[in-house]
Amino acid sequence: MSQLNPDRLFPLEENTRQVARELYQTVKDLPIISPHGHTDPRWFAENEAFPDPAQLFITPDHYVFRMLCSQGLALESLGIPRADGGWTETDGRKIWRIFAENYHLFRATPSRMWLDHAFEEVFGWTERLNAQTADAAYDHIADCLAKPEFRPRALFERFKIEAIATTEGALDDLKWHRQIRESGWTGKVITAYRPDAVVDPEFDGFAGNVEALGELTGEDTSTWEGYLQAHRIRRAYFKDFGATSSDHGHPTARTENLSAADAAALFAKALKGSCTPEEADAFRGHMLTEMARMSLEDGLVLQIHSGSFRNHSAPTMGIFSRDKGFDIPTRTEYVQALKPLLDAVGMEPDLTIILFTLDETTCARELAPLAGVYPALKLGPAWWFYDSPEGMRRFRETTTETAGFYNTVGFNDDTRAFCSIPARHDVARRVDCAYLATLVATGRLAADEAYEVAQDLSYRLAKQAYRL
Amino acid sequence: MSQLNPDRLFPLEENTRQVARELYQTVKDLPIISPHGHTDPRWFAENEAFPDPAQLFITPDHYVFRMLCSQGLALESLGIPRADGGWTETDGRKIWRIFAENYHLFRATPSRMWLDHAFEEVFGWTERLNAQTADAAYDHIADCLAKPEFRPRALFERFKIEAIATTEGALDDLKWHRQIRESGWTGKVITAYRPDAVVDPEFDGFAGNVEALGELTGEDTSTWEGYLQAHRIRRAYFKDFGATSSDHGHPTARTENLSAADAAALFAKALKGSCTPEEADAFRGHMLTEMARMSLEDGLVLQIHSGSFRNHSAPTMGIFSRDKGFDIPTRTEYVQALKPLLDAVGMEPDLTIILFTLDETTCARELAPLAGVYPALKLGPAWWFYDSPEGMRRFRETTTETAGFYNTVGFNDDTRAFCSIPARHDVARRVDCAYLATLVATGRLAADEAYEVAQDLSYRLAKQAYRL
Amino acid sequence: MSQLNPDRLFPLEENTRQVARELYQTVKDLPIISPHGHTDPRWFAENEAFPDPAQLFITPDHYVFRMLCSQGLALESLGIPRADGGWTETDGRKIWRIFAENYHLFRATPSRMWLDHAFEEVFGWTERLNAQTADAAYDHIADCLAKPEFRPRALFERFKIEAIATTEGALDDLKWHRQIRESGWTGKVITAYRPDAVVDPEFDGFAGNVEALGELTGEDTSTWEGYLQAHRIRRAYFKDFGATSSDHGHPTARTENLSAADAAALFAKALKGSCTPEEADAFRGHMLTEMARMSLEDGLVLQIHSGSFRNHSAPTMGIFSRDKGFDIPTRTEYVQALKPLLDAVGMEPDLTIILFTLDETTCARELAPLAGVYPALKLGPAWWFYDSPEGMRRFRETTTETAGFYNTVGFNDDTRAFCSIPARHDVARRVDCAYLATLVATGRLAADEAYEVAQDLSYRLAKQAYRL
Repeated sequence: MSQLNPDRLFPLEENTRQVARELYQTVKDLPIISPHGHTDPRWFAENEAFPDPAQLFITPDHYVFRMLCSQGLALESLGIPRADGGWTETDGRKIWRIFAENYHLFRATPSRMWLDHAFEEVFGWTERLNAQTADAAYDHIADCLAKPEFRPRALFERFKIEAIATTEGALDDLKWHRQIRESGWTGKVITAYRPDAVVDPEFDGFAGNVEALGELTGEDTSTWEGYLQAHRIRRAYFKDFGATSSDHGHPTARTENLSAADAAALFAKALKGSCTPEEADAFRGHMLTEMARMSLEDGLVLQIHSGSFRNHSAPTMGIFSRDKGFDIPTRTEYVQALKPLLDAVGMEPDLTIILFTLDETTCARELAPLAGVYPALKLGPAWWFYDSPEGMRRFRETTTETAGFYNTVGFNDDTRAFCSIPARHDVARRVDCAYLATLVATGRLAADEAYEVAQDLSYRLAKQAYRL
Repeated sequence: MSQLNPDRLFPLEENTRQVARELYQTVKDLPIISPHGHTDPRWFAENEAFPDPAQLFITPDHYVFRMLCSQGLALESLGIPRADGGWTETDGRKIWRIFAENYHLFRATPSRMWLDHAFEEVFGWTERLNAQTADAAYDHIADCLAKPEFRPRALFERFKIEAIATTEGALDDLKWHRQIRESGWTGKVITAYRPDAVVDPEFDGFAGNVEALGELTGEDTSTWEGYLQAHRIRRAYFKDFGATSSDHGHPTARTENLSAADAAALFAKALKGSCTPEEADAFRGHMLTEMARMSLEDGLVLQIHSGSFRNHSAPTMGIFSRDKGFDIPTRTEYVQALKPLLDAVGMEPDLTIILFTLDETTCARELAPLAGVYPALKLGPAWWFYDSPEGMRRFRETTTETAGFYNTVGFNDDTRAFCSIPARHDVARRVDCAYLATLVATGRLAADEAYEVAQDLSYRLAKQAYRL
Repeated sequence: MSQLNPDRLFPLEENTRQVARELYQTVKDLPIISPHGHTDPRWFAENEAFPDPAQLFITPDHYVFRMLCSQGLALESLGIPRADGGWTETDGRKIWRIFAENYHLFRATPSRMWLDHAFEEVFGWTERLNAQTADAAYDHIADCLAKPEFRPRALFERFKIEAIATTEGALDDLKWHRQIRESGWTGKVITAYRPDAVVDPEFDGFAGNVEALGELTGEDTSTWEGYLQAHRIRRAYFKDFGATSSDHGHPTARTENLSAADAAALFAKALKGSCTPEEADAFRGHMLTEMARMSLEDGLVLQIHSGSFRNHSAPTMGIFSRDKGFDIPTRTEYVQALKPLLDAVGMEPDLTIILFTLDETTCARELAPLAGVYPALKLGPAWWFYDSPEGMRRFRETTTETAGFYNTVGFNDDTRAFCSIPARHDVARRVDCAYLATLVATGRLAADEAYEVAQDLSYRLAKQAYRL
């Protein structure tokens, strides 16, 4: 029996629900534009079978293993590798059983909705997952994974992905992207320029990274001008592999617009490893403005993802290393922080800066008022913990009245959980249709306009904002 | 065909919607009390025809031109005058066409709802505005404006405005208010005392402004006592022209209650222009407490509008000067900030201090708890970017449970967009009736009480709080 | 005529309302688990009649008298005792009349809902309270209070309280708890360990309190080790009287994990009264980590209630002393603040730390992400001003998607208003059933799961989290 209610996420009141249903019918089968995310380009390059259900659904999905961890289940038992190479579970079936026995923990979470959707729509498994059904589900999915129609490229096509962006570091050789291109496969998998390792003085091995950047580009990156030029060259290289955007994950939204002399002096300190935390922060902030200036030249869209306290648990970081579900949002200030950047380039109509936030209290107060007046600024969709029905609803309710729809950029799935991509886009389309239907039913939007906006939010705006 | 849904903003569920409709019927035709706003008293003094549709709807309305600006339209093309006198569009029809072609940007914004309401209810224009209908709409409205029944006083009466407050600086001669009074016209247009220019050491020309205040009042405003006495005299002058309130627009909610000696010393530094930013902030904060003490003497209501970062874009400020839609809300703290003021006068039952916020995250956490216990404190309605259906709904949902209805003060339109006044009050009445209907339908308020509260929120509380 | 709508707080849409009704039927008669609150153990020890309606409903309930105060009614007129022993009203009927005349102030507040519920369900009084009905209501309730079935133990049993925790200071002799135990009455009234007076260097008489702690335990509390040991002994004493938790009410959520030497040095300064405010804050923060370590030994649950600015009004504090409704929530930061505690003990699966917040803006951003990954962390329910239908709804909407249901701990009434306890639990159960029904109706939860979760939220989770 299907676990998926066909009217899920639609308004409760029947007439409004009917409007939502009709809007949704016009967008549910649109191609997927996935302009920002973290799928692995190697999947599409090699097109090998995914190894097993646990390695597809649990081990790589921090939403899933963090919830299990929160109830005292050891990360080792979920197959998360230890930094010291110590024991961790490798039997996919055992990991899957733990997951299935604890599936009730996910009740009313977006993970549950994405998982049920993937089990059913991707793999045709329609029973409720629990301790009793664990093995049967595992076997069913494992059988599917062995078939050619469940290989990455086949799923890509079945998911109707028109374009997907991965994210690579500035020093990445983009070999998988090259392999995709050379394979002759026509799936549009593009990269995005993520230079954290070479713009953040506090990043592990910063000076060496900058040196490597010099080697890759033939520039003398020990000088400020050579360093900037190396970025330009590298951005061009990423553009060759389809990149239409850069992406920047800073702890705060701070920006700076320093004089060339001050910037050069700070860069020199950064290379020597002698920046104070304040100076490192200033340097990162200044580099956003430099990147924006380069965007004016080369047309890459500038994405800013700020406000995450990374790797919050010191013991977990020690045992398991980075990215184990312990990234926690923090309060973020934008009005003062973005002023240097906006004074420098905010009035440029040909520049696109897309802001993402983990602090939704800023949406109505800071972000919508800023995006509602600065030509260069657009708001990215509800991000990370807010990438959920309630989060998306609040995003629309707190941004639309001040910034409208056209200073937003559609949906990003921002995921490495490949099979959740159709589910995530489906959730976003449903939530937006529910919101639009509510506007229509309360006289805030005409019905004919709602159909147009539904297309915009599901497809057009992402394509246009990311120049895809 | 009407663009206005007669059930707009009402709850979705039919029984609850019916309760809202019935409540709304009892308040929709109540007179308008507009106790705080920025209409131009000259309109009512001279009673001349408004010049053209663009100068009525676009050029003076920062909500409208900021949204157009956000999509890259140059402010010059919208008729916004440049500070240097350089070229700006003056052809109303051309400006109007840009506006009409981009009318889709306003979808689901309050501006759209106010504009549609004004076009239809004030001017009888019922078609959708867009590129095709732009000229016809322009001609229709222009024709209306030429008629006597569209002059300011006629509209004032047609809008059923029982009382409206404008806002004038402390140095204003109130000549338009005098002209209104001397004209014999009985429309109640009153002023409000806005002393920013003479209480903010960082205001352009502060020392000169204080000197001018001395000249106007015959007091020696180079002394602290003379300065305070000059305020008293000036407040009395404003009271003569109907003022029942003062208004204070500070960047933060900071208050101070300094000793007379410390205040005098700070004032002396302010006159010399040697205050640090911190001292300037302390002086502004102290002046709120002084103003509250004067309110205890003369009965003026003290309004505090804090939390706006004014003129955020330096380049725009350079080219176009102040107030061009670049005022951005900031995070605001009240609990510590208001303590000096509240320790001084917060327990006074005859004093009314009305707080407005641009940081709605403080409503449930700080403002409702404060207003729910201090006799002197009342909460102003949802302000500025929150002056919208969602903003108003959240205001009620986050303040009522802790502060009740009777520590709030009804609605303020706070606008210079004259034709939007009926629309704005209509939105507020609809949102409040929807909220009350929801309370009734969920057993949180008895039906007979809801009718009484609807009257209170639409009319009585504003009249009572502002002593009108 | 009943003032209570049987469908109160349920969703508006009829099908969803029907689901909520059916869910509610299965939980409405469950026993009450009240794991944190402030009822007076003396009531249950002595089991004497409550004195009069005003002393039952008004004088002890800061929600009630703060709202009356906010409209200018003097606290003396409401029977609040003055610190100087000056006049205050003692005639219960007069106090009651003021309350009744102003009952409209409580429209749409949770107090109104709790009061109506208590009047009707506890006392069988079903008319609307107002000036006309004041005396009759007073007489009716006073007559009831004289009867044996309205004595504390009888009400306890009628309310179906399975277990209730009071809160006592570390120095309390727990004589009322002893008297309850020795009386042979089987009602489960337990204590909780609240050591503010002996862990907060800024608490009145801190050094003397610590000395008294030494005397009570036979430890030398002038040494750091003796002081810690005294806590262990005292906690064991509280456990003897049923305590399963400690409770900590700090101004911020700051924690520290100092070395033993640094902690001992800070403790020595605290005893000498020479801590700076910063050092006092650090000491309080460190004591949370010490308490958590003791919890690992003795199994007490650690509750943290932070973020209240206590006794905000200096004049009111001067006249009436502490706890007169002037405690105001403040903005609270958790991500940095809790890191030392969480690095020390956050990964312990056998420890339970329950966080309460007065800053709901942190729920989605900080608290749910933290509780959704750290095994030791659970989220307490919506607290204080958020203990309301809208507050509870927002709590679920902002925490469930990230932390799920199973990192929350059911409901706390946290009250000293005894007769409001059934009303408060009823409100919580209704709001949760409304939320669950909405999830079911929007396809986010299966119906059979909703029934299970309803039991969890109404009963099981509180019992399990507090080890009752």
